[in-house]
Amino acid sequence: MADSRFFKNAGPFALAQIAEAAGAEIVNAESCDHLITDVAPLEQASPDTLSFLDNRKYLEAFKETKAGACIVSPDMVDHAPDGICLLVTKTPYHAYARVAQLFYPSQNGQGNVSAAAHISKSATVHETADVAAGAVIEDNADIAAGCVIAANAVICKGVTICANTQIGPNASIANAIIGSNTIIHAGVRIGQDGFGFAMGLGGHEKVPQLGRVIVGDHVEIGANTTIDRGTGPDTTIGNGTKIDNLVQIAHNVQIGQNCVLVSHVGISGSTELGDFVLLAGQVGVAGHLKIASGTRVAAQSGVMRNIPVAQEMGGSPAKPVRKWLKEVATLERLAQKKKD
Amino acid sequence: MADSRFFKNAGPFALAQIAEAAGAEIVNAESCDHLITDVAPLEQASPDTLSFLDNRKYLEAFKETKAGACIVSPDMVDHAPDGICLLVTKTPYHAYARVAQLFYPSQNGQGNVSAAAHISKSATVHETADVAAGAVIEDNADIAAGCVIAANAVICKGVTICANTQIGPNASIANAIIGSNTIIHAGVRIGQDGFGFAMGLGGHEKVPQLGRVIVGDHVEIGANTTIDRGTGPDTTIGNGTKIDNLVQIAHNVQIGQNCVLVSHVGISGSTELGDFVLLAGQVGVAGHLKIASGTRVAAQSGVMRNIPVAQEMGGSPAKPVRKWLKEVATLERLAQKKKD
Amino acid sequence: MADSRFFKNAGPFALAQIAEAAGAEIVNAESCDHLITDVAPLEQASPDTLSFLDNRKYLEAFKETKAGACIVSPDMVDHAPDGICLLVTKTPYHAYARVAQLFYPSQNGQGNVSAAAHISKSATVHETADVAAGAVIEDNADIAAGCVIAANAVICKGVTICANTQIGPNASIANAIIGSNTIIHAGVRIGQDGFGFAMGLGGHEKVPQLGRVIVGDHVEIGANTTIDRGTGPDTTIGNGTKIDNLVQIAHNVQIGQNCVLVSHVGISGSTELGDFVLLAGQVGVAGHLKIASGTRVAAQSGVMRNIPVAQEMGGSPAKPVRKWLKEVATLERLAQKKKD
Repeated sequence: MADSRFFKNAGPFALAQIAEAAGAEIVNAESCDHLITDVAPLEQASPDTLSFLDNRKYLEAFKETKAGACIVSPDMVDHAPDGICLLVTKTPYHAYARVAQLFYPSQNGQGNVSAAAHISKSATVHETADVAAGAVIEDNADIAAGCVIAANAVICKGVTICANTQIGPNASIANAIIGSNTIIHAGVRIGQDGFGFAMGLGGHEKVPQLGRVIVGDHVEIGANTTIDRGTGPDTTIGNGTKIDNLVQIAHNVQIGQNCVLVSHVGISGSTELGDFVLLAGQVGVAGHLKIASGTRVAAQSGVMRNIPVAQEMGGSPAKPVRKWLKEVATLERLAQKKKD
Repeated sequence: MADSRFFKNAGPFALAQIAEAAGAEIVNAESCDHLITDVAPLEQASPDTLSFLDNRKYLEAFKETKAGACIVSPDMVDHAPDGICLLVTKTPYHAYARVAQLFYPSQNGQGNVSAAAHISKSATVHETADVAAGAVIEDNADIAAGCVIAANAVICKGVTICANTQIGPNASIANAIIGSNTIIHAGVRIGQDGFGFAMGLGGHEKVPQLGRVIVGDHVEIGANTTIDRGTGPDTTIGNGTKIDNLVQIAHNVQIGQNCVLVSHVGISGSTELGDFVLLAGQVGVAGHLKIASGTRVAAQSGVMRNIPVAQEMGGSPAKPVRKWLKEVATLERLAQKKKD
Repeated sequence: MADSRFFKNAGPFALAQIAEAAGAEIVNAESCDHLITDVAPLEQASPDTLSFLDNRKYLEAFKETKAGACIVSPDMVDHAPDGICLLVTKTPYHAYARVAQLFYPSQNGQGNVSAAAHISKSATVHETADVAAGAVIEDNADIAAGCVIAANAVICKGVTICANTQIGPNASIANAIIGSNTIIHAGVRIGQDGFGFAMGLGGHEKVPQLGRVIVGDHVEIGANTTIDRGTGPDTTIGNGTKIDNLVQIAHNVQIGQNCVLVSHVGISGSTELGDFVLLAGQVGVAGHLKIASGTRVAAQSGVMRNIPVAQEMGGSPAKPVRKWLKEVATLERLAQKKKD
């Protein structure tokens, strides 16, 4: 069902092949002996496409889907409509991710370099990398195999981009080393000066920012997000970390592996996050803090102190989430008592 | 008074012509028998320019203005300075908008295509569209009549831009269909991957994002705003909706008609807004919610539940605004009681 | 220690020369009679490099540093490790800023204009300005001596950029006059339409935005920040003001001198800030307000009223910070009393 103007479908595939990619068990296989041509949402699916159910909110849509096959968890099997084939797994969303990747594999570079790209003679661009029109690759930059540099992106002098990494349109990367299999979306800004000033009544004196940005492998960085380079130490983003759109990461911040930072999060200078930290939308974190691996912070919270042990936090100033919710409930009760 | 380096004035105009555009009634016409050359703020206006009064905060400036003519509401007539001509209407700001459009009409494309634009041979660019230097139009993109594509903008493969729509400098549009008479400002990012991962302790698996972004007619999208494409369903923005700068709209969000989203608003995935919803600055809305038409949410609020009926909301978590303000007042009173 | 792929070191320098730049007094000079080759963080410094201590959080690192010389405040002298030379000053961070500038001076333009830049014939580019590949300079724009226009930046028609100002990659500047010695980072958007609509049930009518953006000297504007032009009056940014990444400044806002606006701050239309106002991260300020010089607002606060006298504010709605903290403490206490 994906619009063929934008997406290239690698299918069709037989159900057995899909089940293998999904790591799922086939139930009711006899009802689906034809090839599956595509994936589709429950409401739009047809007998030759496959869908998935991951969120109980969509149970009604599942009961009425016309999909030929559907990925579900074991407890959903009994709710299936008649004549549907099921791919059953305890992790249906993961399974769907792998099936969708089967139909729509990520495209690495193929060696297509536009005549309208501007590539410095001292830059190195691997023969399998793509560079689109208007992209600028400055002196001594190094673009590895399979990279895709989109239109009007700017790779500044000396930057290294490792294999199979994608840089979106109009993004700019400076003073940085970017790992492999990483996706940097449109308009991302990496490696500009951090916000470093010696403040005073005579004006604010600029402090040269002499560090870099080091981004790991399998990282994703959302559109128009900004990551400043370090002051002397580096700003670092660990392997597997996923960053949403419009996030701000200040100088010297160190982010561990597999963290998730949702849109509009802001992290102040020199703060360190462990691994698997989740910051929901619009969370702010003050500077020079240490946040333990596994910490989860609710949307719009303001973290002002170290979080030495993994926990769920909420509120501004942030506190353990149960404490925060109790305060919310207490204030609600007290306000109701007052007549007005 | 507008700087002629930047703005081209279509005037002068006679007062009667201006009153007709404004839909206003002329009072004290005899004091203004000359042509009006321009519009200007109250403090800067001169006898041959026209101003307007919409906000009572500026009443003093109105009393002292040297404007030759002024658009006002009926209750302001008695406060007018001597010798000024008035254009009286119940909706002075609307009237001013139309008069300012008379003097400074929006410019559609005239068929100016820069030799320094990079246009794919398979793209279609209407003969009346403008394409500026450094702009990139990729394969099979379709740019309709009267469009203006500014410098270094990127229109990715297969994208359709309908008539008289403007795309600002350095903006990038992918996987999208954009309506007519829409304005997309500088640095906007439309159609990149949504933030879709199957999360787990072994790392976060990328879920291919197979939908599009569908933007209606007469929409305005502010600078550096980001709108992710859908996961399979589309992300949609209804006709007449106005979105400010640095707003985040996640995958599958559906926004109705004539909504107003102020700067730094963030809307999480799959949430649906009705028509005429107003979200003030820095509001966050959680995912998978339904917000009724006509809902208004105060700045910095955090919407965590469905809003089934139009109302004013405030606070984080958001609640009806009167309840929120009562809680604010209650806490203030309780804190004052405590000595410290 | 700075990576030579990205940073060009103007050193080495003798200690006396460094002390003069720092405005600091040398203590224990005999232990450092060799040239200093670079600056470095305490943990990474070696005997031929210089470091600094400004934040007591890093006292332990100071005690163990291997730096040959270190800038410190007088009360830190007794904590110095053996054999280190000290540069003693009451303002160590300012002193470090000046020393780092000595080693890594800011680079003005040298007259390098890329053959791949797109410069209108009617534009004026000073013979000492740099213009990188893909940059677009439109009609009648004026780029003064020593400016640096980075790759894929867009300087729209009629814009003036004064001497020694730097415009980052993919930034776009329209309808604006930019002062001298100012730094505008990657992806900044200046001068696009403000968010001006006459709202109504028949739809929202666009109000032409006829003002400009006037940016002073020695200003810094962070990556992907957006500054809308005025509606008729101008939007103005005073000399010496420093603005972080992803900040939103609406039409007609007037910001005084030497203000500091941290990331994700949003300022609504027509608000005026005095001088030396500090807004911490994610602060929102409503429209049409006046904020006194010297005001400081804590992170995530929401300013909804005028602040006529300099003070520290916090909370949403913002109030004097002591009052806000008392409310936070009061609610915490009341919630603890309730059993649940």
